[in-house]
Amino acid sequence: MQFVSVQNVIDLIAARGLEPLLLEMADYLEQDFSRWPLFDKAARYASHSKDGVIELMPTSDGERFAFKYVNGHPANTAAGLQTVTAFGVLADVATGYPQMIAEMTVTTALRTAATSALAARRLARPDSRVMAIIGLGAQSEFQAHAFKALMGIRSLRVYDIDPAATRKFLANMAGAGFDIVAADSAGDAARGADIITTVTADKKYAVILSDDMVGPGVHVNAVGGDCPGKTELEAAILERASVFVEFEPQTRIEGEIQQMPADYPVTEFWQVITGEKPARRSAEEITIFDSVGFAMEDFSALRLLRDLVTGTAFCSDIDLVAGPADPRNLFGLLTPKRERQAA
Amino acid sequence: MQFVSVQNVIDLIAARGLEPLLLEMADYLEQDFSRWPLFDKAARYASHSKDGVIELMPTSDGERFAFKYVNGHPANTAAGLQTVTAFGVLADVATGYPQMIAEMTVTTALRTAATSALAARRLARPDSRVMAIIGLGAQSEFQAHAFKALMGIRSLRVYDIDPAATRKFLANMAGAGFDIVAADSAGDAARGADIITTVTADKKYAVILSDDMVGPGVHVNAVGGDCPGKTELEAAILERASVFVEFEPQTRIEGEIQQMPADYPVTEFWQVITGEKPARRSAEEITIFDSVGFAMEDFSALRLLRDLVTGTAFCSDIDLVAGPADPRNLFGLLTPKRERQAA
Repeated sequence: MQFVSVQNVIDLIAARGLEPLLLEMADYLEQDFSRWPLFDKAARYASHSKDGVIELMPTSDGERFAFKYVNGHPANTAAGLQTVTAFGVLADVATGYPQMIAEMTVTTALRTAATSALAARRLARPDSRVMAIIGLGAQSEFQAHAFKALMGIRSLRVYDIDPAATRKFLANMAGAGFDIVAADSAGDAARGADIITTVTADKKYAVILSDDMVGPGVHVNAVGGDCPGKTELEAAILERASVFVEFEPQTRIEGEIQQMPADYPVTEFWQVITGEKPARRSAEEITIFDSVGFAMEDFSALRLLRDLVTGTAFCSDIDLVAGPADPRNLFGLLTPKRERQAA
Repeated sequence: MQFVSVQNVIDLIAARGLEPLLLEMADYLEQDFSRWPLFDKAARYASHSKDGVIELMPTSDGERFAFKYVNGHPANTAAGLQTVTAFGVLADVATGYPQMIAEMTVTTALRTAATSALAARRLARPDSRVMAIIGLGAQSEFQAHAFKALMGIRSLRVYDIDPAATRKFLANMAGAGFDIVAADSAGDAARGADIITTVTADKKYAVILSDDMVGPGVHVNAVGGDCPGKTELEAAILERASVFVEFEPQTRIEGEIQQMPADYPVTEFWQVITGEKPARRSAEEITIFDSVGFAMEDFSALRLLRDLVTGTAFCSDIDLVAGPADPRNLFGLLTPKRERQAA
């Protein structure tokens, strides 16, 4: 069984380049969105506690099975821990054997950013040049690089309620080829932006983006409102906009549209990819990608990782699955050295 | 994050002794069965395909979260692969951080055998001396050792439709302190047995044990009938017996009682442990432990592993979860050596 460590992913990003890797990730995501009906759409399993949630996100295309373990614990940051950690597994449906286990904390940041930019490439105005980013936490730099790689966005207007987060963002992005304005408020950041990315972490109903901040023609990339009780957009924006989602039943519970009536119309993004539904219809339309993260996106990310690391030094073997020489003789493993064989 | 490999578990068994370890496992299982109402009872997630099933079995006691990945692919054996492979993860509910990942192919065999023997210690006649084992696959030797450790069973009557499986069993058990009779048929194996363990692997409705093979006072440890469409006992046996299950809603779908009407009465085994419900009521009663495996049992097994391996050489560190020095600066990990810190 293959193991892809955190360091392996860091080294892989360094070797391929972050933006080329984000482009590859977007290609894999687009391939899988285009065959969306094949994927198992089981709801994720969520174990809620007072401090947060632990989720298992499984899916399968009939050939491969993948799942991600991911937690969301907003209070972790104060304790010096991450809000979100994750790892994932890819398995062979025909035999049930797990093939690869991989870190997915960094990889999830890559796939989320690539998904956002992939959606914007279809939904934002093609002449979009300026992006606002509101919320400069763990995901923000990845979002910026993905929009540069896929959309050519180089002009950013950024804001975080915490000046330390802004300083961190500016330090990380120095020399990366962006023109960045640190705004005084969310409204200031949104001013003149063609694309507005909201990616805050508070687990509550919040108005990060109010109705007056969103002018005609804007594309809103709403990343942070991604679980029950957590939203970022004022409902009035949704009333003026065309909303695109990953998987409607999940987004009704977890996304921005949890604020809206059950019959509020949305379009599943894969239908835009396949051409079944229109993307943006005019330069004045407000489009919103109400992203909550779907298991297929992790599947795509794991599939890319496996294709990139197999046969390279970016992975190692892990002794996680027993492999007795005679499959009916599991007990033989307990006899020293007699029946043991690498998995 | 701790990693417990297949070799670690093999070495741990060698160091502690198989039967002492099975006794420790039974203690952990009994502790957790006795606080059963605390556990999250979410149904397992199952991804079915034509060749088998891949399952995620999660549970939590509010402090710790655990899940097991496990597959069941009967045709694997013909290809030299195991029918069942598994691994598991233990996590901290308060932070959502995974704490340990462990092999669970061998560990599942241990927990299944310990659960069977734990149930039999309550349900079988105390004077039970002879056990039949029908089905001599990967689980069989573990079952025998668990019944010796917990019940003092040393006399076995064994049968498998495949003589090679019988030879394998006899070779593995040589010198282990058992008196073993290789029977000519399932009926021959069952003759005179106080306890009958059925642990075959075919994924179909089968009559491994027919009504005439089960006399009064027998305890049936039905391990093999554990998924929809897979049973081992003739329904007439169930009509004469008192049936004990792990988690009723799951066993109605996966266990022997899938053959019975929805109102067929059963007792959840934890209620026997807590004393809420009677165990065996007479020496003539037929008792059946209709075991399908429940997530709490894996929780107990992972909890034991963690207690036994922490601070020893029976585990190692694994670089599966990113640990940036500043939790909001995940991107900083991509800057060589600057923000990196062990998880």
